[in-house]
Amino acid sequence: MSQLQRIAIAPSQFQQGQILLTKEQQHYLGRVLRLREGDRFIAMDGKGKWWLAQLAGEQAQVLESLLVETELPVSITLMVALPKGNGFDEVVRCCTELGVTCIAPVLSDRTLLDPSPQKLERWRRIAAEAAEQSERSFVPTILEPVAFNTGLSLVIGHLSFANSQQYICEARAEFPHLKHCLQHKGQMTSDKGQETIVIATGPEGGWTTQEIENAIASGFQPVSLGRRILRAVTAPVVALSLITASCEV
Amino acid sequence: MSQLQRIAIAPSQFQQGQILLTKEQQHYLGRVLRLREGDRFIAMDGKGKWWLAQLAGEQAQVLESLLVETELPVSITLMVALPKGNGFDEVVRCCTELGVTCIAPVLSDRTLLDPSPQKLERWRRIAAEAAEQSERSFVPTILEPVAFNTGLSLVIGHLSFANSQQYICEARAEFPHLKHCLQHKGQMTSDKGQETIVIATGPEGGWTTQEIENAIASGFQPVSLGRRILRAVTAPVVALSLITASCEV
Repeated sequence: MSQLQRIAIAPSQFQQGQILLTKEQQHYLGRVLRLREGDRFIAMDGKGKWWLAQLAGEQAQVLESLLVETELPVSITLMVALPKGNGFDEVVRCCTELGVTCIAPVLSDRTLLDPSPQKLERWRRIAAEAAEQSERSFVPTILEPVAFNTGLSLVIGHLSFANSQQYICEARAEFPHLKHCLQHKGQMTSDKGQETIVIATGPEGGWTTQEIENAIASGFQPVSLGRRILRAVTAPVVALSLITASCEV
Repeated sequence: MSQLQRIAIAPSQFQQGQILLTKEQQHYLGRVLRLREGDRFIAMDGKGKWWLAQLAGEQAQVLESLLVETELPVSITLMVALPKGNGFDEVVRCCTELGVTCIAPVLSDRTLLDPSPQKLERWRRIAAEAAEQSERSFVPTILEPVAFNTGLSLVIGHLSFANSQQYICEARAEFPHLKHCLQHKGQMTSDKGQETIVIATGPEGGWTTQEIENAIASGFQPVSLGRRILRAVTAPVVALSLITASCEV
């Protein structure tokens, strides 16, 4: 069971046993995932090819190619406002089973607490256990909790917008249902690399109007998960269920 | 918040303030839902009309029509093998939020315990609370736990097969994904009445081969929820997420 973190690359970045990293990827690996020179990670080309790679300056050395059968062909990041109590444990567990790539816990205006560092360790342990139980090839990355606006820039900072979809879920508004918005980009051109989906779900009481506006300004599309009001711990599992089903080959 | 149970009728059964019940509906109301003469229930015609009705022999008296905005236009029954521990509480809570109509807990060959009557009361209380929190108009029915084969005949006994879909979820087999199977019968003829979907999810370790075969013999189609192995408490939420999204208007 690998604990390595993953990034999506375009097939054209893979050249003679090396991966030429873009500026955005260098930033994501170093600043978001906090990898250092010589650290290993997984590079995926979105066409079913996975490589074990080692960071070496502005490029990465490919160490070996990997066989993967239980992972989705799409990179899925869940930005989730931390719920009260221990409910987040179950969110990490269920979303890992479903196939999430990265979970970015965020503190929203309506989030009360700032979790302890022990919590982060606990969530990473739960993700590792759930990945093993669900027979996944890789353990999802759990990022450190940050303020919502910081999370927005971290998560979208490395995205290629030509090939990514960003959604923010909100109840009680007349937004279109997520099912109508999910785009199926099965036929990608070889230069675009792996498809990425980012989905954000809110705290008890929902996102504030300002948070929704900031997300929209960052390229997020507001969506609904249906007419009934879901708890903050149910919404991520429902959203992931719809996204992973739409991506499953 | 109404605690009334619901049945689906064909629009043609509604005549001059009365609902003419079929033999199957009489059996379902009396034997499965355990209603008695004079008890009230909800009748739905699958076209957005809901009535409060009162059982009177082989028919029902319509007391008033109801305004419903947060309920799905489809009746969804979840047959679920009871998981170990207290995990079922969360299944009841999440599936109620998602819009389930009826939950039928069953004891499978791999189910270890027979729950106490206090458990049933507890689940019904959780369903009532979750229905209120999620702003539903009605509380789902939680049936008494029965053996799987008994559950099969109870649940399908009152179905009109022309207008129902039955699925049983199983991992590790090469069954088609539920998303490919869900049929959208939006254009129903007025005689067929409300659409019904029954979905069955298994225990830890999965259904036995015999259980799958019995379900198939009862008209169930075996389906997959994806390539990763979901826990017994996650699978019902994932299945309901896909079904309710496909039904949401």
